[in-house]
Amino acid sequence: MRHDYIKRDFSVYKARQLLEPGPIVLVSSAYKDKRNIMTLGWYTVMEFTPSLIGCIIANSNHSFDLIRKSRECAINIPTADMVNAVVKIGNSDGANTDKFEVFDLTAQKAKKISVPLIKECYANFECKLEDTRLINKYNFFIFKIVKAIKATSPVYPQTLHYHGQGIFTTDGRKMDKSKLFTKWKNSPTF
Amino acid sequence: MRHDYIKRDFSVYKARQLLEPGPIVLVSSAYKDKRNIMTLGWYTVMEFTPSLIGCIIANSNHSFDLIRKSRECAINIPTADMVNAVVKIGNSDGANTDKFEVFDLTAQKAKKISVPLIKECYANFECKLEDTRLINKYNFFIFKIVKAIKATSPVYPQTLHYHGQGIFTTDGRKMDKSKLFTKWKNSPTF
Repeated sequence: MRHDYIKRDFSVYKARQLLEPGPIVLVSSAYKDKRNIMTLGWYTVMEFTPSLIGCIIANSNHSFDLIRKSRECAINIPTADMVNAVVKIGNSDGANTDKFEVFDLTAQKAKKISVPLIKECYANFECKLEDTRLINKYNFFIFKIVKAIKATSPVYPQTLHYHGQGIFTTDGRKMDKSKLFTKWKNSPTF
Repeated sequence: MRHDYIKRDFSVYKARQLLEPGPIVLVSSAYKDKRNIMTLGWYTVMEFTPSLIGCIIANSNHSFDLIRKSRECAINIPTADMVNAVVKIGNSDGANTDKFEVFDLTAQKAKKISVPLIKECYANFECKLEDTRLINKYNFFIFKIVKAIKATSPVYPQTLHYHGQGIFTTDGRKMDKSKLFTKWKNSPTF
């Protein structure tokens, strides 16, 4: 699984363009000599500026401890051709294995965090933990995206959407409804 | 825009099957003699049991006040053929108009809340406000789904995914990867 992506910086407030559609993401994490990857579908965009993302990371996951201790993670967007790795990552335990090695994924050095990015993914968001207040009760982490890169092509990648019971869909027909937008059309966050 | 859906009760813990893929939803709300509808893309599943959903509802929205006062809302899932109504609802202000009337949508009586459901939508989730603690800081509402209904057919509706800048995609190719799942295969929440 090798993509020859050329990646460029992407404004962090534009993260919604890739995350609001709801693709399954891979969250990478690291603390001291341990690193891990988990598959995540339970997250939401929360704000443009600062660029905030809320994620449910269950405390049964090895990633939970790594992220709570390092206060960092990377959100990586895989494409549909990576579906087998996405499922297997979600069905394996990172406590005793290095998922980068097992799934032949390349750990790429990040710029603003100490967590490795997943090079094969279409886009990568470097995140710092912003608010811990709902972690104990709901396993809900609020992150601030501090740096974002994405592939220059294609503009609309085929991402994965999870429906439970092992079923994914990928993106289908594109509809441009920009002419019907009136309210925020002149805003940079449109 | 009329759908002849036959709807049936749906276990609330299965809400993730429809919401985790990330479709744009319509949130209906009501308080005293006012009712409203807003378009929402910033939400996440938070838990199976109780069935929790976290939603960003900006305080600039008319819906914000209605929901904070009534402590209820309905999450309704529109299909791709409703895209024009979805966009127009998101680009209009409910303070002085009744969006059910303006957009020719049928207000259907809910069972466990006083907020009307949108009959034309594929599925409807009746929600009660569960946790208010992040509303002031992030406009983040945590709801408990107390009742769910969905159309009996199709099993996989064509929903809308929003990419910003007026661009939507609908669902494309379906991939069954259930054979690769090992970890939760015998769980009711699989």
